[in-house]
Amino acid sequence: MKLNILGCYAATPRSFTNPTSQVLEIKNELFLIDCGEGTQVQLRRNKIKFSRIKHVFISHLHGDHCYGLVGLISTFRLLNRETELHVYGPKGIKEIITIQLKLSNSWTNYPLYFHELSSKEPQLIFENEKLSVETIPLIHRIYTNGFLFKEKPGDRKLLINKAVEYNIDVSLYKSLKKGKDVTSESGELVRNHLVTAPPEPTKSYAYCSDTAFNQKMIPQISGATVLYHESTFLEDKAELAFPTKHSTAKEAAQIAKEAGVQKLILGHYSTRYSNINLFREEAAGIFPEVELADDGKVFVFE
Amino acid sequence: MKLNILGCYAATPRSFTNPTSQVLEIKNELFLIDCGEGTQVQLRRNKIKFSRIKHVFISHLHGDHCYGLVGLISTFRLLNRETELHVYGPKGIKEIITIQLKLSNSWTNYPLYFHELSSKEPQLIFENEKLSVETIPLIHRIYTNGFLFKEKPGDRKLLINKAVEYNIDVSLYKSLKKGKDVTSESGELVRNHLVTAPPEPTKSYAYCSDTAFNQKMIPQISGATVLYHESTFLEDKAELAFPTKHSTAKEAAQIAKEAGVQKLILGHYSTRYSNINLFREEAAGIFPEVELADDGKVFVFE
Repeated sequence: MKLNILGCYAATPRSFTNPTSQVLEIKNELFLIDCGEGTQVQLRRNKIKFSRIKHVFISHLHGDHCYGLVGLISTFRLLNRETELHVYGPKGIKEIITIQLKLSNSWTNYPLYFHELSSKEPQLIFENEKLSVETIPLIHRIYTNGFLFKEKPGDRKLLINKAVEYNIDVSLYKSLKKGKDVTSESGELVRNHLVTAPPEPTKSYAYCSDTAFNQKMIPQISGATVLYHESTFLEDKAELAFPTKHSTAKEAAQIAKEAGVQKLILGHYSTRYSNINLFREEAAGIFPEVELADDGKVFVFE
Repeated sequence: MKLNILGCYAATPRSFTNPTSQVLEIKNELFLIDCGEGTQVQLRRNKIKFSRIKHVFISHLHGDHCYGLVGLISTFRLLNRETELHVYGPKGIKEIITIQLKLSNSWTNYPLYFHELSSKEPQLIFENEKLSVETIPLIHRIYTNGFLFKEKPGDRKLLINKAVEYNIDVSLYKSLKKGKDVTSESGELVRNHLVTAPPEPTKSYAYCSDTAFNQKMIPQISGATVLYHESTFLEDKAELAFPTKHSTAKEAAQIAKEAGVQKLILGHYSTRYSNINLFREEAAGIFPEVELADDGKVFVFE
């Protein structure tokens, strides 16, 4: 799992900072999460191939999380994309995009599917053989979801020396990786665990932006490998966090601690702060395994 | 008159080029013309004060000319703008913007007025004591207007030595500048032309992007100080210009020549060309007074 931060600053794009967007890579598949204005340029700058993006997840319809989507969709069209694109986001997102494509007479020449969300409960919204994605209902000024990406267990690891020792035909290795017992060439039943090791532990990524302090999400994200949690403010502006339904770095750390995640990544900093290191300092007092997102930064989840 | 090019490349924003947007300054008033994605960042980079922009003119609803508008409008709101904003553009632009503001529950806290255009004839769409703006109907794949900005004549220039010589009271200087005859302190009638000189010649700016070769505009833009005319292609791709309803550099030069403008500025280059100097070379064979737009470039019209 690899996370490429394209933008992680709140509210308005500036000369050298970008609104929210990130690319999550899981087992060679790319998932675009949020798409603020300028995301397509950030994808280019970070050398991410447009054609590899097949799924876009939009948390909510505030501009700093979605104003770049129509431009990205249009650029895909101009590049003669043929691959289908799936957009998951709040009810209304289809109307926003289609009215613009209609009025510019620029329908996509590739299949474009919208998956509109309106449930206030966690929902499984995507699943394939490698992973699943569920919504994490968040508390914000408008309808907002976070997203929980969970890997599925991979194949068991074949212990090749053991397999040779037990005299197992190569054609059965695939069955071994799938966890099945097999029969050796000499006719003996070989129990799977004797010739394989367990698969890599699965990883998970919880994306929670934008949200007020929300303990309701804790059971769902419990034990996640990485939690990205917004921290628009420091505690010095805690009085702004509540009415705007954002969080402070301390609150984000509190959620990480209570959920027992392995690592916390902070982002969605208000542009009023010139030194983002203060966010790490504030959070580390409560949850030491904290890192700071920044535009262009790449995190590899070990 | 001063023209600040924020972006002048066709189709998609790239790492180091921007879609169409420009700021025209006339007698201390700023007019934003087109607003591709990323325009608000280009405004910041070019140190143009957001609050000075009160009028935005959108030529057409293709994304590279308007996808930055909703972001700019939203940022104005976040910056607690109070000044009113007027948007002039094709019918539909109001719907595009308002659906997004509605779904994000982010109505502007400043007055936002839409002036939707649908006429296929030139129309006077803005006028104050300093200038007027009319549409220039263009030929493109969807409904598109260029814009003709025309200064109104300023005050006559007071010849201060002459005014003293004719013994005219200072309180009458304003009347002199307005072209009126006055009475001197000794009771004589003083003809205006004896103590003033004519005002500066007025300037005009014709913005024509996007458009196919369109001689119909020539009478309207005849004698303009500056013509900005799109040149998406060179003649080597003339076969693409016609079906996409764009122009070549040669065609832009032909329009400039026939209209007898003082200067031609080329822009809206297809990103397939890596050397934009070829556009100037192609146009200069027909119209020598040609310059190239480029992102961040400023033209002062003498």
